[in-house]
Amino acid sequence: MSSLSNNRFALIVAGGSGTRMCAETPKQFLLLNSLPILMHTISAFNILECKPRILVVLPEHHIDFWNQLCIRHAFNVQHTLVKGGETRFHSVKNGLNAIDGDGLVAIHDGVRPIVSQNLIERCFNVASEKGNALPAVKPNETVRLGTPEISKKINRDECWLVQTPQVFEVSKIKSYYMIAYNETFTDDASVAEANGCKIQMVEGERENIKITTPIDLAYASQVLKTKAEGSGLNP
Amino acid sequence: MSSLSNNRFALIVAGGSGTRMCAETPKQFLLLNSLPILMHTISAFNILECKPRILVVLPEHHIDFWNQLCIRHAFNVQHTLVKGGETRFHSVKNGLNAIDGDGLVAIHDGVRPIVSQNLIERCFNVASEKGNALPAVKPNETVRLGTPEISKKINRDECWLVQTPQVFEVSKIKSYYMIAYNETFTDDASVAEANGCKIQMVEGERENIKITTPIDLAYASQVLKTKAEGSGLNP
Repeated sequence: MSSLSNNRFALIVAGGSGTRMCAETPKQFLLLNSLPILMHTISAFNILECKPRILVVLPEHHIDFWNQLCIRHAFNVQHTLVKGGETRFHSVKNGLNAIDGDGLVAIHDGVRPIVSQNLIERCFNVASEKGNALPAVKPNETVRLGTPEISKKINRDECWLVQTPQVFEVSKIKSYYMIAYNETFTDDASVAEANGCKIQMVEGERENIKITTPIDLAYASQVLKTKAEGSGLNP
Repeated sequence: MSSLSNNRFALIVAGGSGTRMCAETPKQFLLLNSLPILMHTISAFNILECKPRILVVLPEHHIDFWNQLCIRHAFNVQHTLVKGGETRFHSVKNGLNAIDGDGLVAIHDGVRPIVSQNLIERCFNVASEKGNALPAVKPNETVRLGTPEISKKINRDECWLVQTPQVFEVSKIKSYYMIAYNETFTDDASVAEANGCKIQMVEGERENIKITTPIDLAYASQVLKTKAEGSGLNP
């Protein structure tokens, strides 16, 4: 790693239009315990000791609405807005291009508001040593590969469900994103891997869910309440 | 399929001691919207039109407690209690041995209370045609296989997270369970598969979670409330 690695960036991608939520409001703006999801996500990075520079990628037509939300909720965490692109790939690329200088960038889904300080720091720490870090959790369930008719069980201990933040060296991930777009790029690691990059996984957190359905939202709300209260469940 | 296939059985396995819940009470007895989880699960099978005979496998030392719970909650759904064994495998085996006659048996986790009537019926229907049925859902996340240091992305469309109820012909699954125990038997399909059985998967339901943590319990509570109310979430 270069001497530039002390610079820290958070690139929060909030491009989703939220059709799966059965709501007019794009999901990153839905209220989670009275505050838009995206504000929780941004705050999760703002409380870090390393104080990353925060960039938020939004679809251009949502930027006015977002600015109004920030006023309404008196949200004053400093962040740079970047216009999103056609797909997540293009949005991340736009975000990376808005970063000046080298260091480490944590690329994170705007609708993963439950990410802990601890997980983000772990990803930054591993990436500063190994070049990148990809949080992932093992599934609780038995896992099978194949089609409904023909499938086989795979070893659950070897299976990982991938989360964000995915941390990379800025200069490297920028160069990886020069590759032509391919619809198999479901995350940043897959873009890096298509460039021959070796990926380092770290233990993620089960609670660090991506909010895609109303029930996910209710779940996230409960996690935040449980965290706030310590632990107070029945019986 | 034989002419006996009109018989329907539900074998609900509730052997867990619940240490992951940080609670004294085994998780199947924890209250979910004022009623023990296991009662929700049993009721999910009791409302079926096919009226399966319901067997519940419990650790022997929990049977008195369960009977008291049934009195306390005026729970009068008819079910047969079967003593559990050392592992899930042994508990299922005991349960299967308590079934008289042939037909189809849905083997279900006691701590999956959110299973819908629709899903159970779909599994019975597919099994009556194909011999067995295994509900599973595709993961929302990018999936990787390997170790933290060396892993590769797999095609998410080919990956399935397995649920219950797993439905089999009674006589066949009984014979499959004659096999010697092996700790790779994480579900009934893996036991069947070790006997050379071909497994048929059907689309599961994302909400049909296995309750293993306090947050899962909160999630299940929310799902039940949402189902009861139709849909009433914040915009």
